[in-house]
Amino acid sequence: MPVADMFASLRGIARLAGLRYADPAEADLKGCNVVFFATPHGVAMAQARELVGSNVKIVDLAADFRLKDPATFERWYKMPHACPELLAESVYGLPEMHREAIKKARIVGNPGCYPTAIELGFLPLIEAGVVDAAHLIADAKSGVSGAGRKAELSLSFSEASDNFKAYNVAGHRHHPEIVQELNGFSKQPVRVVFTPHLTPMIRGIHATLYARLTKTDVDLQQLYETRFAGEPFVDVMPSGSHPETRSVRASNVCRIAVHRPQDGDIAVVLAVVDNLVKGAAGQAIQNMNLLFGLPETTGLAAPPVLP
Amino acid sequence: MPVADMFASLRGIARLAGLRYADPAEADLKGCNVVFFATPHGVAMAQARELVGSNVKIVDLAADFRLKDPATFERWYKMPHACPELLAESVYGLPEMHREAIKKARIVGNPGCYPTAIELGFLPLIEAGVVDAAHLIADAKSGVSGAGRKAELSLSFSEASDNFKAYNVAGHRHHPEIVQELNGFSKQPVRVVFTPHLTPMIRGIHATLYARLTKTDVDLQQLYETRFAGEPFVDVMPSGSHPETRSVRASNVCRIAVHRPQDGDIAVVLAVVDNLVKGAAGQAIQNMNLLFGLPETTGLAAPPVLP
Amino acid sequence: MPVADMFASLRGIARLAGLRYADPAEADLKGCNVVFFATPHGVAMAQARELVGSNVKIVDLAADFRLKDPATFERWYKMPHACPELLAESVYGLPEMHREAIKKARIVGNPGCYPTAIELGFLPLIEAGVVDAAHLIADAKSGVSGAGRKAELSLSFSEASDNFKAYNVAGHRHHPEIVQELNGFSKQPVRVVFTPHLTPMIRGIHATLYARLTKTDVDLQQLYETRFAGEPFVDVMPSGSHPETRSVRASNVCRIAVHRPQDGDIAVVLAVVDNLVKGAAGQAIQNMNLLFGLPETTGLAAPPVLP
Amino acid sequence: MPVADMFASLRGIARLAGLRYADPAEADLKGCNVVFFATPHGVAMAQARELVGSNVKIVDLAADFRLKDPATFERWYKMPHACPELLAESVYGLPEMHREAIKKARIVGNPGCYPTAIELGFLPLIEAGVVDAAHLIADAKSGVSGAGRKAELSLSFSEASDNFKAYNVAGHRHHPEIVQELNGFSKQPVRVVFTPHLTPMIRGIHATLYARLTKTDVDLQQLYETRFAGEPFVDVMPSGSHPETRSVRASNVCRIAVHRPQDGDIAVVLAVVDNLVKGAAGQAIQNMNLLFGLPETTGLAAPPVLP
Repeated sequence: MPVADMFASLRGIARLAGLRYADPAEADLKGCNVVFFATPHGVAMAQARELVGSNVKIVDLAADFRLKDPATFERWYKMPHACPELLAESVYGLPEMHREAIKKARIVGNPGCYPTAIELGFLPLIEAGVVDAAHLIADAKSGVSGAGRKAELSLSFSEASDNFKAYNVAGHRHHPEIVQELNGFSKQPVRVVFTPHLTPMIRGIHATLYARLTKTDVDLQQLYETRFAGEPFVDVMPSGSHPETRSVRASNVCRIAVHRPQDGDIAVVLAVVDNLVKGAAGQAIQNMNLLFGLPETTGLAAPPVLP
Repeated sequence: MPVADMFASLRGIARLAGLRYADPAEADLKGCNVVFFATPHGVAMAQARELVGSNVKIVDLAADFRLKDPATFERWYKMPHACPELLAESVYGLPEMHREAIKKARIVGNPGCYPTAIELGFLPLIEAGVVDAAHLIADAKSGVSGAGRKAELSLSFSEASDNFKAYNVAGHRHHPEIVQELNGFSKQPVRVVFTPHLTPMIRGIHATLYARLTKTDVDLQQLYETRFAGEPFVDVMPSGSHPETRSVRASNVCRIAVHRPQDGDIAVVLAVVDNLVKGAAGQAIQNMNLLFGLPETTGLAAPPVLP
Repeated sequence: MPVADMFASLRGIARLAGLRYADPAEADLKGCNVVFFATPHGVAMAQARELVGSNVKIVDLAADFRLKDPATFERWYKMPHACPELLAESVYGLPEMHREAIKKARIVGNPGCYPTAIELGFLPLIEAGVVDAAHLIADAKSGVSGAGRKAELSLSFSEASDNFKAYNVAGHRHHPEIVQELNGFSKQPVRVVFTPHLTPMIRGIHATLYARLTKTDVDLQQLYETRFAGEPFVDVMPSGSHPETRSVRASNVCRIAVHRPQDGDIAVVLAVVDNLVKGAAGQAIQNMNLLFGLPETTGLAAPPVLP
Repeated sequence: MPVADMFASLRGIARLAGLRYADPAEADLKGCNVVFFATPHGVAMAQARELVGSNVKIVDLAADFRLKDPATFERWYKMPHACPELLAESVYGLPEMHREAIKKARIVGNPGCYPTAIELGFLPLIEAGVVDAAHLIADAKSGVSGAGRKAELSLSFSEASDNFKAYNVAGHRHHPEIVQELNGFSKQPVRVVFTPHLTPMIRGIHATLYARLTKTDVDLQQLYETRFAGEPFVDVMPSGSHPETRSVRASNVCRIAVHRPQDGDIAVVLAVVDNLVKGAAGQAIQNMNLLFGLPETTGLAAPPVLP
């Protein structure tokens, strides 16, 4: 089936003219340089050994290679891990955290959309060791496309529009991923309360992060600007800013602002991404660029679409 | 001007047929039993003495009679208070907090929309003294009508739709109101970090509240159910619930759920109201009912509109 | 299952407290005065004989009793009609067209949402015989709830939001219903081009109707006002008006305006309804009121919800 | 003021880093190759003589150079035309109609958003002379950004969301433009009933066009495919299609489908554009490309953004 038959938006685009969907079972994936898995959890790990053995690199957009601990994976995804040894060597694909390791990886576990925004938002505070890492709060809001392209009553326009709600407050699959990654940069064990919410927009994640400062003489603005200096896809906004999700719509940027309301002892970080780009497909391309030594921004230069 | 000329939705409704807008300057407000001020800040207090002197009760939907400390009022609203002595006797119009006082009041300061959801959400925890009141976090999301009916670029459909953002993180006028009211029920001085957000829906406020438990053996579900037992307009949902804003759309209900994720030491409270009803006009009617000894639910029985 | 368990919006409403869903197969429908069928096409007609035989009145919100010609029903709904003799005696439930017949009916076929707006909009022109009935154009736009409460990819927020499209231009099930009903009031055989569109809103239908005038000296405004004088649920707006769907949101009103652009020979009629109320449940109640000799507006007096 | 200070979405994009807004009064426009006027009506014509005299080409996105008849311009825009002689030589910037003339022009009047969709949709029928050109009907629906970026109550999220309405049914400024252009390709004088509607989406125009066929043996699909063969920005979809506005979101494409419901004598054409791209800025770039002999698709190759 030609891709443009499913997505009329792609009709007439010459460089896509030849693209057709192929049955993965019949496709010669071993002839590829890289395979992106945008598949249900469990698919990538089932094929990973064979592909890696054929010198094919893998970027998995599902969760098969995100959680380092197979037991944690099993608890949250209700299936045993098919290749723990490959899991062990795989790299978590957040370039701002693991750039050098990604360059040398064979398998990249592309981060979840929420974790991308939340980890980037907390990272400077955690690395600097200036907050109580055991009581982090991540209040995150996602557009509806974050749930994937599927027919589900709660995602229908009539139910999701003009409405706002939290969900999975008791536990969300992205929770262990966030804890694992922040733990990797923290001296103190990390605990996070993570509250996901559904907001009536197509794309976008807004993470509002709260951390209690253990040192209050830190220049937070400076801390963030220094940490992300030179990062092509992280924009630390000027002090006092409020990033909007639409300011990153259809782009690979994470935009961040850091506040300390009333000069109190709680830092408030606002971080926005497009869940489908920096939170998914764009980050996958960024990882591919790193895997193959391409300029990191290749294919990711389109500006956000506004309004 | 007939009201139905501005709002075509009211055309043909017999009981409204005679209703016309009148110029407040020419209207005989002193002949009324009660006057609702849905006016800019400062208007109600300018007329309060004369009305009260004529035995007219006042429900102010603006901020003139919310903040007990005239200096605080002046700091946030940039005008001196016109009648501090009436401010002193006025009552903050959240019936679930001040029912008996409202019944005897001459002037009611109708709460702000955010404070209604946030105060009701925190109240049981604060009253019971089981949380660290000095580090409360209120992450609140509002529909666009919360800003009032006005022409403003940032509220236009093209800017506010498919977008999510925080605003006024450094300080919002509803902040002192929240602190004042929670302080009234707390042994420990209250401090709140309050982060308002704009979400692309017409109506609704969703407050996600975080408090660190100082006692962890409290049955939170029981605490909330007991506190609000018998309240006609507060619905404590079953354990594990996630209230949706649309479940209170066009109704005077505040729906609340309380969680303790991973059995940790942070309580998460979810509270939703319709900012135009329980957060404004509906609560004003509830207050009027109390002022005049009417059944508290008079005129407020219409069920929410869904979808 | 208690109704309020599925619809949290109904929690705590005393008059609904006892309501539970029942299995239709086990419910004693024959003990009812009236049964509303809000079921898939084919369900009502399967039970109609038995119910009618037990003196139970029926209001069917599906299509089983809308199309008088069983062959037409069969062509569009792909099933034979189960009780043609009851179909013959049933009445099409648009009170503004068939009020007296409804009062005496045993079975009412409640109209579709599009037909309600389109038939009311065209009716005065057709009855007066002042347009070319063989070339009517009905360009209609519906909110997403018009498709029913179901999980379908094309109805998901991510697909239906920020989007506009026509559908079923080649033929829509409501087409024969519109032709049948207008034919009943026309001397000339009616032909209609009917183009349904999906618009990103929850509720509302806006029909824009075009008809070529065969007499151009008619006072269209007068024609409409006279035709609908005294109708409790049809509001003919002043000349030059543009009814908005939100002006009838959650109410049983059909609001209509009639135009003749540039004094040309084409009449343009704008008609709006809430597809869930006057286009479905509200009209069903209106029909029930007629069936039982109740005041026609009983239970339908709530004003529209705005904004 | 740096452009990125107003539009945070452009922060950090190297090729825009130096861009700043300049005061038009002080800018050296005469040093430019081309000036795009995205200004209120009347601004471009006031500066046109001087710029053209300095060999600067002009693309006006307002209406100053759309209407060939100065009297018509004056009637609709309530101002005399400042340079009728330049108006006479200017070219209407719809490349699919006037490509060769645009290439040689000094001034291009960029079409309105509605006219772009409506003219492209009707063009093959009018050119072929197969419809009654005196009774065309254009039922068009626009996203809110079509009204421009401005603070206006009726465009606010709370008013425009979950709502649908027609406006300016008696007359819209784009009406004379449509008539003028279609007249240029018609043997019979053109009359159009044009009904604009506001739909709750950010971007997109959907034109549903109706024309009575005077020859019914025409292969409409073939007619459209032939007329637009080779056009880089017009996509004639397969027979039976329904183009969605989102399929052209953020792209310069006009997507068209043509229907003949029930094999009757009325042709129904569905045409969609992004009002901000093919309906405005993208078309302006397309015109610039023609003015300067660049490949027509330069700068316009980005695929639509979906979802």
